[in-house]
Amino acid sequence: MDKPNGNHTVRVSPTALREFITSILTTLEVSPSQAAIVADVLVAANLRGVDSHGVALLNWYANSLSRGLIVKNESAVIETEGPGFAIVDARNTLGAPAAIMAMDKCLELARTNGLACVTVRNGNHFGMAGYYAMKALPQDMVGMAMTNASRLVAPTFGVEPMLGTNPIAVAVPAGSEYPFVLDMATSTRPFGKTVVAKDRGELLPEGVAIDAEGQPVHDPGVFIEAVRKHTMALLPLGSFAELASYKGYGLAMLVDILSGVLSGANFGKHVNEHPEEPANVGHWFMAINVASFLPVNELKTRMDTLIKELKESRKAPGQQRIYIPGEIEFETEIKRTKNGIPLDLNLVNLLQSLADDIGTPVKIEVIE
Amino acid sequence: MDKPNGNHTVRVSPTALREFITSILTTLEVSPSQAAIVADVLVAANLRGVDSHGVALLNWYANSLSRGLIVKNESAVIETEGPGFAIVDARNTLGAPAAIMAMDKCLELARTNGLACVTVRNGNHFGMAGYYAMKALPQDMVGMAMTNASRLVAPTFGVEPMLGTNPIAVAVPAGSEYPFVLDMATSTRPFGKTVVAKDRGELLPEGVAIDAEGQPVHDPGVFIEAVRKHTMALLPLGSFAELASYKGYGLAMLVDILSGVLSGANFGKHVNEHPEEPANVGHWFMAINVASFLPVNELKTRMDTLIKELKESRKAPGQQRIYIPGEIEFETEIKRTKNGIPLDLNLVNLLQSLADDIGTPVKIEVIE
Repeated sequence: MDKPNGNHTVRVSPTALREFITSILTTLEVSPSQAAIVADVLVAANLRGVDSHGVALLNWYANSLSRGLIVKNESAVIETEGPGFAIVDARNTLGAPAAIMAMDKCLELARTNGLACVTVRNGNHFGMAGYYAMKALPQDMVGMAMTNASRLVAPTFGVEPMLGTNPIAVAVPAGSEYPFVLDMATSTRPFGKTVVAKDRGELLPEGVAIDAEGQPVHDPGVFIEAVRKHTMALLPLGSFAELASYKGYGLAMLVDILSGVLSGANFGKHVNEHPEEPANVGHWFMAINVASFLPVNELKTRMDTLIKELKESRKAPGQQRIYIPGEIEFETEIKRTKNGIPLDLNLVNLLQSLADDIGTPVKIEVIE
Repeated sequence: MDKPNGNHTVRVSPTALREFITSILTTLEVSPSQAAIVADVLVAANLRGVDSHGVALLNWYANSLSRGLIVKNESAVIETEGPGFAIVDARNTLGAPAAIMAMDKCLELARTNGLACVTVRNGNHFGMAGYYAMKALPQDMVGMAMTNASRLVAPTFGVEPMLGTNPIAVAVPAGSEYPFVLDMATSTRPFGKTVVAKDRGELLPEGVAIDAEGQPVHDPGVFIEAVRKHTMALLPLGSFAELASYKGYGLAMLVDILSGVLSGANFGKHVNEHPEEPANVGHWFMAINVASFLPVNELKTRMDTLIKELKESRKAPGQQRIYIPGEIEFETEIKRTKNGIPLDLNLVNLLQSLADDIGTPVKIEVIE
């Protein structure tokens, strides 16, 4: 739901944006197949309105490739495979292609096994977690994806960022309704939304971020500067101890345990700890084969009932709609597929400079 | 962390309390083995300080047994079993014995399969979710347990209770540290904590409960009365839309999907919908065999590191400790195992009346 501010945006077709990303990455010696995967994952985020995880990440990825922090010309490998699980060593390659390999293996194992999980170590930032969970939908499965990340979130009663915003994504098929797609940071807000607030000139409400004294931070610009030095932190979901922020903290820790501790990746404050070393991010993927439990059509009918009853329940005064997780993003995707993806002009200029710097003649083609 | 108010409590030994519960249940024609399981689950909750899920539930269970809403002299059955999954039909028997059967099967399947899950339908209230997750710990596995429940929680932008407080429990072994045991309602507070607030004469802070107009409810007594008529609701974790309550709502829905929709049980507002019909609660259990992923000792050492680093991180002013999920409950368990379980005198009298009513001569033996 991060939308660029309305003033200085242009619109770009998804196809043109994928081609631009692919061109940048192949110029940086990424294989065409890996580049195409990264392009699809980033553009999928932009299409769904999750602009913090879209093409805005390309500059960072390109920088890490150029500095050798992300390895090119190699692939992730499936290191161990059992009946219901597999372990992937991403070998410090690009996050998205390694994650796709892991999720594809997970879906394959779940088909015969009922459910399966795959861990990934030596990984990198893989983009929007929901992308991988949603890969289960066309196969009539339930998909889950989690990842740990650089430290930004303080534990309850603490002020030091010790855990990532560690997202949980789950996708469940439905029938006539949109699928259920929960894709949530376990902090009150993900880091990207503090950047959006800064761009829009908005303040952070109490409950989002704290300083080293535990006092609320309202200026997103101040927060973004300080967080690099670990002197400020995001708060876990729940925000305050009396509103059960220890649950958000517990969920962030759970994601770190499954993604990092169990996989053999870095965990806690050690993820991406040394700027000149590989990040060694860890991921966790899971798939459940619906047909192992009940007929797929029955699951879809039951999901439709749950969704309809929730949407038809009584609204709070002033509210017109109750949303299902993922619904706003599906509606955004339909609009943006038709009308193009709105991008901030500053971002477009930054990306164009990147193309010029690395010497590829590609241009971001603007619709209007 | 629900503690009876300090004024009118007595202390009871865990062994005596288990014997009392078993005696009540066997008098109601529950088999000794099922009665012993229910007694152990309830007393485990009291020992851990989760008094809302302890012996306080016995009156409700006994009432449901007497009215034929819970079936006795039958057992749950494993209806379907695959390599990594099983489906249990609890046949409307007592919640805890059916849940134990499901979790035991789950652990057995995960041992050879890497991970496994088991769904339960036609279930009943199973007590403290963490009990089942923690069954994985002595086997060096990760355990998970979820259940849906009677509707109490409103979706974001809604005011009508449509989902249960739907808990998520996860247990992960550690080495020298206490295991990680997250056991959380997906609402800001579970219902039991509103009852505790009432008993203590405390008000509910804004962000816990709302009335039919979406306005905060502060008086727990008013809330407890109204919630039976579905005219008030608990708020999902996050409390307010601007602090991301849609995430708590999404998690509550996720638990309902895995526990209810996928299992074939009731779901959403239909759980325990008709007071004269079986509740048809649904559960979800999962186990991960640590040794499939890395040596157990390595997992435990890594858990200890994560836990120690979190606990040693900088505290907010005025805070002395950072807690790991489950830590307070482990400390309470040690104290109560030694000193006995403090029970409110009103509760003890209520339980004694129950024993008298059903004609069993058992007495709750008080330590002092």
